Amino acid sequence: MGKKFLILNGPNLNLLGKREPGVYGHESYESLCAMIQAYAKEHNSTATCFQSNHEGALIDQIHAADGVFDAIIINPGAYTHYSYAIFDAIQAVDTPAFEVHISNIQARESFRSVSVTAPACVGQIYGLGFEGYLRAMDFFLKGGQ
Amino acid sequence: MGKKFLILNGPNLNLLGKREPGVYGHESYESLCAMIQAYAKEHNSTATCFQSNHEGALIDQIHAADGVFDAIIINPGAYTHYSYAIFDAIQAVDTPAFEVHISNIQARESFRSVSVTAPACVGQIYGLGFEGYLRAMDFFLKGGQ
Amino acid sequence: MGKKFLILNGPNLNLLGKREPGVYGHESYESLCAMIQAYAKEHNSTATCFQSNHEGALIDQIHAADGVFDAIIINPGAYTHYSYAIFDAIQAVDTPAFEVHISNIQARESFRSVSVTAPACVGQIYGLGFEGYLRAMDFFLKGGQ
Amino acid sequence: MGKKFLILNGPNLNLLGKREPGVYGHESYESLCAMIQAYAKEHNSTATCFQSNHEGALIDQIHAADGVFDAIIINPGAYTHYSYAIFDAIQAVDTPAFEVHISNIQARESFRSVSVTAPACVGQIYGLGFEGYLRAMDFFLKGGQ
Amino acid sequence: MGKKFLILNGPNLNLLGKREPGVYGHESYESLCAMIQAYAKEHNSTATCFQSNHEGALIDQIHAADGVFDAIIINPGAYTHYSYAIFDAIQAVDTPAFEVHISNIQARESFRSVSVTAPACVGQIYGLGFEGYLRAMDFFLKGGQ
Amino acid sequence: MGKKFLILNGPNLNLLGKREPGVYGHESYESLCAMIQAYAKEHNSTATCFQSNHEGALIDQIHAADGVFDAIIINPGAYTHYSYAIFDAIQAVDTPAFEVHISNIQARESFRSVSVTAPACVGQIYGLGFEGYLRAMDFFLKGGQ
Amino acid sequence: MGKKFLILNGPNLNLLGKREPGVYGHESYESLCAMIQAYAKEHNSTATCFQSNHEGALIDQIHAADGVFDAIIINPGAYTHYSYAIFDAIQAVDTPAFEVHISNIQARESFRSVSVTAPACVGQIYGLGFEGYLRAMDFFLKGGQ
Amino acid sequence: MGKKFLILNGPNLNLLGKREPGVYGHESYESLCAMIQAYAKEHNSTATCFQSNHEGALIDQIHAADGVFDAIIINPGAYTHYSYAIFDAIQAVDTPAFEVHISNIQARESFRSVSVTAPACVGQIYGLGFEGYLRAMDFFLKGGQ
Amino acid sequence: MGKKFLILNGPNLNLLGKREPGVYGHESYESLCAMIQAYAKEHNSTATCFQSNHEGALIDQIHAADGVFDAIIINPGAYTHYSYAIFDAIQAVDTPAFEVHISNIQARESFRSVSVTAPACVGQIYGLGFEGYLRAMDFFLKGGQ
Amino acid sequence: MGKKFLILNGPNLNLLGKREPGVYGHESYESLCAMIQAYAKEHNSTATCFQSNHEGALIDQIHAADGVFDAIIINPGAYTHYSYAIFDAIQAVDTPAFEVHISNIQARESFRSVSVTAPACVGQIYGLGFEGYLRAMDFFLKGGQ
Amino acid sequence: MGKKFLILNGPNLNLLGKREPGVYGHESYESLCAMIQAYAKEHNSTATCFQSNHEGALIDQIHAADGVFDAIIINPGAYTHYSYAIFDAIQAVDTPAFEVHISNIQARESFRSVSVTAPACVGQIYGLGFEGYLRAMDFFLKGGQ
Amino acid sequence: MGKKFLILNGPNLNLLGKREPGVYGHESYESLCAMIQAYAKEHNSTATCFQSNHEGALIDQIHAADGVFDAIIINPGAYTHYSYAIFDAIQAVDTPAFEVHISNIQARESFRSVSVTAPACVGQIYGLGFEGYLRAMDFFLKGGQ
Repeated sequence: MGKKFLILNGPNLNLLGKREPGVYGHESYESLCAMIQAYAKEHNSTATCFQSNHEGALIDQIHAADGVFDAIIINPGAYTHYSYAIFDAIQAVDTPAFEVHISNIQARESFRSVSVTAPACVGQIYGLGFEGYLRAMDFFLKGGQ
Repeated sequence: MGKKFLILNGPNLNLLGKREPGVYGHESYESLCAMIQAYAKEHNSTATCFQSNHEGALIDQIHAADGVFDAIIINPGAYTHYSYAIFDAIQAVDTPAFEVHISNIQARESFRSVSVTAPACVGQIYGLGFEGYLRAMDFFLKGGQ
Repeated sequence: MGKKFLILNGPNLNLLGKREPGVYGHESYESLCAMIQAYAKEHNSTATCFQSNHEGALIDQIHAADGVFDAIIINPGAYTHYSYAIFDAIQAVDTPAFEVHISNIQARESFRSVSVTAPACVGQIYGLGFEGYLRAMDFFLKGGQ
Repeated sequence: MGKKFLILNGPNLNLLGKREPGVYGHESYESLCAMIQAYAKEHNSTATCFQSNHEGALIDQIHAADGVFDAIIINPGAYTHYSYAIFDAIQAVDTPAFEVHISNIQARESFRSVSVTAPACVGQIYGLGFEGYLRAMDFFLKGGQ
Repeated sequence: MGKKFLILNGPNLNLLGKREPGVYGHESYESLCAMIQAYAKEHNSTATCFQSNHEGALIDQIHAADGVFDAIIINPGAYTHYSYAIFDAIQAVDTPAFEVHISNIQARESFRSVSVTAPACVGQIYGLGFEGYLRAMDFFLKGGQ
Repeated sequence: MGKKFLILNGPNLNLLGKREPGVYGHESYESLCAMIQAYAKEHNSTATCFQSNHEGALIDQIHAADGVFDAIIINPGAYTHYSYAIFDAIQAVDTPAFEVHISNIQARESFRSVSVTAPACVGQIYGLGFEGYLRAMDFFLKGGQ
Repeated sequence: MGKKFLILNGPNLNLLGKREPGVYGHESYESLCAMIQAYAKEHNSTATCFQSNHEGALIDQIHAADGVFDAIIINPGAYTHYSYAIFDAIQAVDTPAFEVHISNIQARESFRSVSVTAPACVGQIYGLGFEGYLRAMDFFLKGGQ
Repeated sequence: MGKKFLILNGPNLNLLGKREPGVYGHESYESLCAMIQAYAKEHNSTATCFQSNHEGALIDQIHAADGVFDAIIINPGAYTHYSYAIFDAIQAVDTPAFEVHISNIQARESFRSVSVTAPACVGQIYGLGFEGYLRAMDFFLKGGQ
Repeated sequence: MGKKFLILNGPNLNLLGKREPGVYGHESYESLCAMIQAYAKEHNSTATCFQSNHEGALIDQIHAADGVFDAIIINPGAYTHYSYAIFDAIQAVDTPAFEVHISNIQARESFRSVSVTAPACVGQIYGLGFEGYLRAMDFFLKGGQ
Repeated sequence: MGKKFLILNGPNLNLLGKREPGVYGHESYESLCAMIQAYAKEHNSTATCFQSNHEGALIDQIHAADGVFDAIIINPGAYTHYSYAIFDAIQAVDTPAFEVHISNIQARESFRSVSVTAPACVGQIYGLGFEGYLRAMDFFLKGGQ
Repeated sequence: MGKKFLILNGPNLNLLGKREPGVYGHESYESLCAMIQAYAKEHNSTATCFQSNHEGALIDQIHAADGVFDAIIINPGAYTHYSYAIFDAIQAVDTPAFEVHISNIQARESFRSVSVTAPACVGQIYGLGFEGYLRAMDFFLKGGQ
Repeated sequence: MGKKFLILNGPNLNLLGKREPGVYGHESYESLCAMIQAYAKEHNSTATCFQSNHEGALIDQIHAADGVFDAIIINPGAYTHYSYAIFDAIQAVDTPAFEVHISNIQARESFRSVSVTAPACVGQIYGLGFEGYLRAMDFFLKGGQ
């Protein structure tokens, strides 16, 4: 059975393809969304993509997802490392969330090795590039909660 | 003599009643506002309620309160623990602010035991549930500054 | 319905009015007690005031309050910052306790920003001067537990 | 095209199904292996499973994998948190490794939130239960390196 | 040859002249902008001033500056101390940024001595009052990159 | 040959049986003393029990034990975690002391995992409930020093 | 009723009698085992002694003890201070474990004051020399769990 | 002109001469008092000696000294390292206090290198043995405040 | 009106042009001095350059500058990170000092991010290369104090 | 006079020549042994080489060396940074040990700058490549203990 | 019997009377020397005064004092807080040294509360102003070692 | 082929033979130099010895060595632990440096376990007594760089 996904991307992820291509690759944010939506379609599902540089806008979306989406795939960008407000938002809603990072965050600056949002999520994937988003979707598509 | 209060609530407090009812109770944000406004009215005062998940929007309101309200009652939600920008905003205006938390923040996750906004406030109350807002209003109603 | 309050004040609070008046005001410990007792009387309640510089004496009183008083309002003074024994005492009895500080402890020396006793209490108020004690009493008078 | 996988499981994972079923589920280590091998077979691949409680034995296997397997999927168990020797072993060989944890290690004891082995791996997945191993295999099956 | 400058000011800097005049002086944000623009004009350059209390809005502006402005002069206000998202934004664009603070941030509260945004900038000036912005402009006007 | 024991119990241990029975059991302080004294008697020994919530009173007793008792069995309660004065007292007298805790202090709040008094003692037992006191007595009864 | 004990000794304890006799005494590992087994026999019990310098071998034994022994008495030697794998092993099996150290570990190098294995055990004894093992056995012999 | 001195000695100092003579010498507390009083007399002054193992009793004496003594010479013993309550007491009274330690506290256990009471005192002397008390008295005798 | 500047450079700055040219550029210390002196001359001012690898020699110069120079521009080199003696020297004289670093010290080794001398200075500039010295001179030339 | 050396190499050193040749060089573990043994022979000595990835196996060898070898040259590999068990083993035997590292461990990842095994050794050499083993042998060959 | 004293003053103490008179008083370094020398003369002693801002020059003097002076009175100024080289120098010579500070170093900036030189000295006095030097001399004049 | 060595010894090493002979042995600094020079001569090399207690003088020598000596053998004495200026000096010149300590610095005071100069050196030897200097020379004599 298909799922309704909300794909949330945080600050600076709109610059994919341009920003540090050695770390994030050459594909743009638009191609990330296209790839995710094609994958959703193949699995009789839908994926709504939302990106914002605003912490509050991401929280608003998490709230709005409650009862509307089956799962949230979230890459909080740098907010990962200090946004207890996003942590609270994820914990406050019933829709389960999964955290994804494109690069291997354990092998970069030390501040990136701490995630304050992860404890509110079902799990985390990092280091797989864009594939990480699809693997997270697989989890829910195969019945994970 | 009556007072003009600005009641500021930060991220995720719009979900009151729904979010972790074991911690925050079953009453909604709307009933919190109604209760506060009724209490203000009983004391010949007014209370304007504002909630936002956006750090910047809370700062904008604090600035706008200067010279317009007699006191700010603020529950910065998770921003309590890292928003030096809200700290600066409170310190920059003449209107005194009082910090309130609904739950006993000392008895939850360790990150909640540090408040970076409190040093800019007149005082702090926590652990009283919705009553905390009224007790903070009492302080100003009885002439506190 | 009235309440039976035990008002506990810790070390150096007997010097109120004399000690750092810029921080604690000019009123004496005796006037604090008088103000609290008058307020209790107005609300058909009683307030027994006890002050000691001895950590053990405060613990003895907390134990003795069990089943005798409806609520404890405690200002542990400097013991706030290291007395795990008082923390244990509050947790061991059924009578609920509320922590009060006269000054804004977040805006003074750094050692004052940590409270080891607060996690055992229902809540905490600080920065309201003597008013803090009355606001804490209000909480119980209005039915808080 | 198929892949040759080495599946390494560290200390105490032989007790799956018995150990803290609330955290790890009721399925045994044997069913984990069976599931992984079935999945490999479906994808024209092979998966060799190896489990040991001995840090040195895990290192020996990582060395032996070099030039023999296409990828290592490793769940280092508690060695995740202190085995710089396993970190060195992974970095020393050419076969890429991927780190998997069954439970959400960010939401348990604090010592579990630090991984000293992850910086040597391509990426990490946790929180997906047994599915995590399959998602990691997918990454290599779909051409990830 | 002239330059196109983007002058970004973060939270609470709109209150210049009003907020802690002992620290920030009596001149308003508007006079800061006027002074900067006059100085730019004298040097055949232009300076676009933007202020926001919203972290996300500052990031949006940094992104928009790419390929449009020659240099960014940024005073991130309190975001200096925790916004890894602004750090990422500066690092993601090609336009070089220079960090300015009006007061001597090393001689105030301890939290102000850490800048998480500075490592992404070309350099930092503080303690020169409004002059700091002009000195930073000088750097680019004289050919610095 | 029999021994003369001094059994010292620190703050809140007078509440045994009442305080957190899930942690400390349902038996009272009086039954602890009775059990210890019966056990001493069986071994031709005597055990003098003393409990106080006062740090100074415990120190006074340690001093008075010198040359009078053969061994001290001490459960310093919460003073375990900060009383360098009790540490000094134990070190100052010739009578050897043994530290006992009823519960498993390593598996509770983190502040309970540090003992500042233990380095002055011969050894420590915890986690055995009331039995711990008897096991410590055994050590001296069997000739330990 | 008798008990079946597994006595586990970790790294370097095979050198008892030879290694730092000022700290560990002059008796050998063999006499420790003999003493323990004699004591077990006196109490209609059995004690199987196992020593290894290999972390993995100790974990293997803990696993094998499940359902076979009534209690484990473990002295993890230096693994006490970093083996989260042994911690996990003890927690994974139903057989209760008790931690013993021969010397007063609180009065030696600072790294010895932290036990990562103790939180998984029923309790801990140290400072009693070889007697500590017997006292731990007493606990189970007298019905402790 | 003569002075009225209050000489306060904290926990375990009553054991002078007996406790660790290698550190504190062989003279008793009584001879310390006698020596101090003789010295006071030589200088037309008086010295009242008080020793207690009770933190609260020391605080009571500090309070009582206000307006009665010209100076306090205090050796807080181990309370030096954690009694913020004594710190508050000294700061609360007008009589100046001087901190004395007999041994070189910087050359012993690390916990002795931190004094939380010293910041409230006029100065500190240590390492001079009993002479330290006289040197501190000299300060006041020669007009120091 | 012209100014008399003392330009102090600390250890290893005599090696400019030779030492890590990727960080410090290819220009020598002599050309730095020439550039500074030319700039001073253009502004009817004088600049005396002094370099030493000796901490004490730098302090001597700071003392000698008092009443002789109008301003000190100091680059303390590595002494920046530990010389409290230079901090004291700057604070002791009336001549204001300004701290300059050639490279972006926030983006290099972590020890370079702490300046113990900066709190005694009027301000700090870094990251501007040699220009930083001129920008600091500008501050005083334009009347800053 | 000749010496009998035990050369112990820890985890991953069997991969010499293959693992990070930029750090460890292109020579294999076998050539390291050959070089050491040739050097020993030249000096009328013998060198027994042993390598293991197993912490316990290294400890077993250290124990076995007692009274058999004149000196141990040990490169504990990554165990250097956490194996208190190897520290204990070295301290327990009479044969002196010398610690060697091939690369400059102070100039790599931060975890490599802490050696928990070094305090039990006679000395340490690092940064000399394979030569370090010979230099350590020299120490004993020239009579060092 | 008279003594030969070496009075060493470290960096910035040549500025006494000029530097922060609120902290150090209005008397000059020369009057400090005169006062010390007069006091020495009164006691049939001599005092040689030496001041330097150079760490190395102070060490040279400490070395030269050995066998020439009976005691060193040293105020290391800011070197107090980081000069392990002076610590070593004092420990290397037989002449005993006594540390003196003019101000209450515990009541100023936090870096002043750590003395790395004090552990090598016989004792320390601070907070007595110039008198501290005389009190330290008294210690040796009265036979202290 | 022979080498030209510069042997630098830092503070207090001129006192060799006199200072703590239990740690440093009974041989003087002069015999250290003689031994080094004899060894150099045997290997057709020269060794210039320089010792100073002045941090700046050591830096001057390092600078002067550039292009003149083939290698520096440096024992920075206590400057090892805080002189970032010497670190910078070594890094600034092309002549390679090797760090030597006479005693086992890991087994003494804790401050001696941190070397801030070592990361700029080719390697480090300690614990070999005077031999360490010769072993370091061997490294360069055998062609190391």
